[in-house]
Amino acid sequence: MSVFRLPLLDWGRRYSRENLSGDLIAALVVTVMLIPQGMAYAMLAGLPPQAGLYGAILPLLIYAALGSSSALAVGPVAVVALMTAATAGSIAEIGTPGYQLAALWIALISGAMMLLMGLLRLGFVANFLSHPVISGFITAAGILIAASQIRHLLGIQTSGKTLPEVIPSILANIGGLHWPTVVMSALGLVFLIWSRKGLAPALRKLGLKAAAAALLARGGLFVAVLASTLAVWLLGLDARGLQIVGDIPRGLPALAVPAFDADLITYLLLPSALIALVGYVESISIAQTLAAKRRQSISPDRELIALGAANLGAGLTQAMPVTGGLSRSIVNFDAGAQTPAAGAFTALMIGAALLALTPLLYYLPNATLAAIIIVAVLSLLDFRALPRAWAYSKADGAAMAVTMVVTLVLGVEQGLAAGVGLSLVMHLYRTSRPHVAEVGQVPGTGHFRNIHRYEVVTTPEIVTLRVDESLYFPNARYLEDLVQEKIASNPQLRHLVLMFSAVNAVDASALESLEMIQAKLRDAGVSLHLSEVKGPVMDRLRRSDFPDHLAGLYLTQLDAMQALAPELTLATLNAPRHERRKQGA
Amino acid sequence: MSVFRLPLLDWGRRYSRENLSGDLIAALVVTVMLIPQGMAYAMLAGLPPQAGLYGAILPLLIYAALGSSSALAVGPVAVVALMTAATAGSIAEIGTPGYQLAALWIALISGAMMLLMGLLRLGFVANFLSHPVISGFITAAGILIAASQIRHLLGIQTSGKTLPEVIPSILANIGGLHWPTVVMSALGLVFLIWSRKGLAPALRKLGLKAAAAALLARGGLFVAVLASTLAVWLLGLDARGLQIVGDIPRGLPALAVPAFDADLITYLLLPSALIALVGYVESISIAQTLAAKRRQSISPDRELIALGAANLGAGLTQAMPVTGGLSRSIVNFDAGAQTPAAGAFTALMIGAALLALTPLLYYLPNATLAAIIIVAVLSLLDFRALPRAWAYSKADGAAMAVTMVVTLVLGVEQGLAAGVGLSLVMHLYRTSRPHVAEVGQVPGTGHFRNIHRYEVVTTPEIVTLRVDESLYFPNARYLEDLVQEKIASNPQLRHLVLMFSAVNAVDASALESLEMIQAKLRDAGVSLHLSEVKGPVMDRLRRSDFPDHLAGLYLTQLDAMQALAPELTLATLNAPRHERRKQGA
Repeated sequence: MSVFRLPLLDWGRRYSRENLSGDLIAALVVTVMLIPQGMAYAMLAGLPPQAGLYGAILPLLIYAALGSSSALAVGPVAVVALMTAATAGSIAEIGTPGYQLAALWIALISGAMMLLMGLLRLGFVANFLSHPVISGFITAAGILIAASQIRHLLGIQTSGKTLPEVIPSILANIGGLHWPTVVMSALGLVFLIWSRKGLAPALRKLGLKAAAAALLARGGLFVAVLASTLAVWLLGLDARGLQIVGDIPRGLPALAVPAFDADLITYLLLPSALIALVGYVESISIAQTLAAKRRQSISPDRELIALGAANLGAGLTQAMPVTGGLSRSIVNFDAGAQTPAAGAFTALMIGAALLALTPLLYYLPNATLAAIIIVAVLSLLDFRALPRAWAYSKADGAAMAVTMVVTLVLGVEQGLAAGVGLSLVMHLYRTSRPHVAEVGQVPGTGHFRNIHRYEVVTTPEIVTLRVDESLYFPNARYLEDLVQEKIASNPQLRHLVLMFSAVNAVDASALESLEMIQAKLRDAGVSLHLSEVKGPVMDRLRRSDFPDHLAGLYLTQLDAMQALAPELTLATLNAPRHERRKQGA
Repeated sequence: MSVFRLPLLDWGRRYSRENLSGDLIAALVVTVMLIPQGMAYAMLAGLPPQAGLYGAILPLLIYAALGSSSALAVGPVAVVALMTAATAGSIAEIGTPGYQLAALWIALISGAMMLLMGLLRLGFVANFLSHPVISGFITAAGILIAASQIRHLLGIQTSGKTLPEVIPSILANIGGLHWPTVVMSALGLVFLIWSRKGLAPALRKLGLKAAAAALLARGGLFVAVLASTLAVWLLGLDARGLQIVGDIPRGLPALAVPAFDADLITYLLLPSALIALVGYVESISIAQTLAAKRRQSISPDRELIALGAANLGAGLTQAMPVTGGLSRSIVNFDAGAQTPAAGAFTALMIGAALLALTPLLYYLPNATLAAIIIVAVLSLLDFRALPRAWAYSKADGAAMAVTMVVTLVLGVEQGLAAGVGLSLVMHLYRTSRPHVAEVGQVPGTGHFRNIHRYEVVTTPEIVTLRVDESLYFPNARYLEDLVQEKIASNPQLRHLVLMFSAVNAVDASALESLEMIQAKLRDAGVSLHLSEVKGPVMDRLRRSDFPDHLAGLYLTQLDAMQALAPELTLATLNAPRHERRKQGA
């Protein structure tokens, strides 16, 4: 399906009354979560609370029109908010117009990048964020997010963005903690953590049906907001120094292009690219997981277009950058969202709240928002991932560990860049020294395996090397050196067979090396044969005259051996099959 | 052999009288070439002539002690001289102390980097310079070198380092060309070009033996230097405005550490790394080609150590950066150099020349040096490489073309960086969309090939996918999507076999994808089997619990099919073999 075809036209035409009721209920549940979360993530991003609420209006309408996921809940999310704060904070002081301008341009630039990538069908670049890197990054980002909220939880001043900055700053200011704030935070945290698991059973005990109880339990955030706001108002806690949200402008955001600043935009290009990458990867992972549960499919390129346009919408309506968020998407899915219209309904409800409810949020304490953030990031932390990755492969474990440590110590952009860079370098290192096995025939079969792992039949006049990697510039010379060794160590050698079953590409550098190998073998009186060359590789090699000078070219390794050592091969083929693995191999 | 073991100890112990005579003759021939070439390349690098001669003393002695090539002639070379000029010229005006300081630090830093890489056995990084990139870079560098010498050939002023700068500057100043210089250049060029092919036959006609004629013909450079110097002196051309070499300080260079400047060193890190990379790749290619002719071997890591130490020696003795040069190495080899001692003898002869001969070089015209440079770079230009690479593979051709164009238009560092970057990105792009073939059994064999290329036997209940690439983060998700398609398009599907004969690695991201595939297949009532998994891959997979949940794991694809569809497979195995390729596939 073309990326230019609106998904809206597909599901819109078949929209039914059941769709409507599912979507409306899901929208209501998501809205109840999104009002406090939007304000909390705006605070995390260093922006005024309305930036989070605005991020749940136009971007959601745009995603509903363009997106391909029926359950993804787009809007402000914690990791992107943290990255926005890190970038905007490196340009201007928090709370200044320069800071807010930077945040708007981050949304516009990362949105434009996603849109462009989607239109150019370059969604594959997101794959360069390997699983260990993204997983390590998100855990580290969760820790940094939690650390950044200590100030709101304790009512103290802290500074810095990385652990070596934040921790000393907390310790230096811990003496000034504000007890009413601490109590408020503690109550909020305890209630929110309990409500995640305990609220639904408690509601069932009160006589509600299981489904209704599960749905109502999602209102835990709302209860916390309501209770803490009431407490502040009744007890006059704001007059005792408790920080509150304060005035939120009533009404909808205006559509406006932020002031143009070429230097600012140039500076933001790289950080915005990283934010776009992380936002996209987070969103597509969630969308694909949810789609798989309903046997639907997600188009990565169309998702890029939809998220890109949604972020352009955010940047034009004084909103913070957005993407698909994990917790709200799961809630949306569980609450029965049927189509992207659920997102549009959410946007309308948030808009209504902005028109009517903002005065009610005046006394909402920052401590409650911080507690909401802390509880949200708990689900991001996965400390068992590191030992698991390390046990599977030291390279993957190292990539994850480096990403985590650099993120925590130097910052989010640096951590992400270090992780991606290290993954690429380690991949190149691995392929630059490919596994090459000398193989022989497994008795009783036409199959050929590693002489060091299986009891196989070989003859000293013929050496077969199975090259277990595509041949390309990083490893081209390696094979040359290896073949030279084989010539030197096997004086009886007459035929060298390169078994290409695992060679998926041969680039120009490798062709050059193969020609060098051919020349060296000729000088040494050894003939060169190829077997099991795959179609695409053979097509490519035929563009050069390399195959013309080969002594032999065989469809199968068995054909090669039957041509070079017919009696031995036939005898082995008809021998009783035992093929057991060698001891300890 | 350890990199810490001096090669000198091996060949030094067996040194014979024949070695001595071969080495001495080769050293004499190389010295006669090196005196003018060293001064010419120093001029190309924007340094005083003695910087080239000094580059042929201590560095050569160091390489003789540490290097592993018996024929490599180390010293100033054209491409490294050009890169030195490009870097130093971006820091200071040519001729200033700042410029010379930068050149010394380039030698020291690139030397230290090579030494470190060698000690850490990281020689493999040189492989990241793919063949098309290095070949395109050297041709483009040759063109830039030739363009930079136009000023000396025509006696005009030009400026700039790239073609868009140099060409307009030549055109603007062409009116002021200096006729005595032009005549001197033309005579020099004609003689030098003729002498490359015509001098040896001419000497044979005069009655010399072939070997002696070939050896003497190498003195063409010396004849050009002698004749042009005499002409300037006799005709008083320097008084008529012809540029000459002038005073060269008599005596040997002093050992001195250049002034330390932290900012300068930081700035030079990246350019010096590129110079080290190019210098090393050029040198190792020559050394390996010459070693192969004598069935000797070269240790890449030991070469890095030797070249690194040689460059440290250069930086400490007011010399320009050095590496192994193509033309002098071939001359050294042809003239019979037997051991690295030939290089040491060359150093002693250059030292003697510095003590005695510098006054004789006073009247040597710059035009002659420029002609020597032009003739030397002619051998670097290979314009047929580009169409050849393009015909073999568009990706390789594009990498070469981009390297050439960016080098010519933006500069040497940019060109090299663009080429290396593009090669990596294209490699990642290629592996991110791997070739996956659906395979079936070739009748009459136990062999399985692509259903689109061969007439094979399949059954709709079993789909076998042969994945033609290692599974790792850039392509992990691709296989997931592909399998989902296969499930959707084959309602009869009961068994999916992934044939891993070409899978050489499975990283943590791909393991995650395989587990997702397993879960999706289970939900769809399809069982997952693996066949032909290689030893190292299986060892790795066993570290997770993924293999425990597999429906089947088979040594060979034939085993898999015999287990899943025994009658069909046996019948196909015993069918008459025809296996012809499908039309047009």
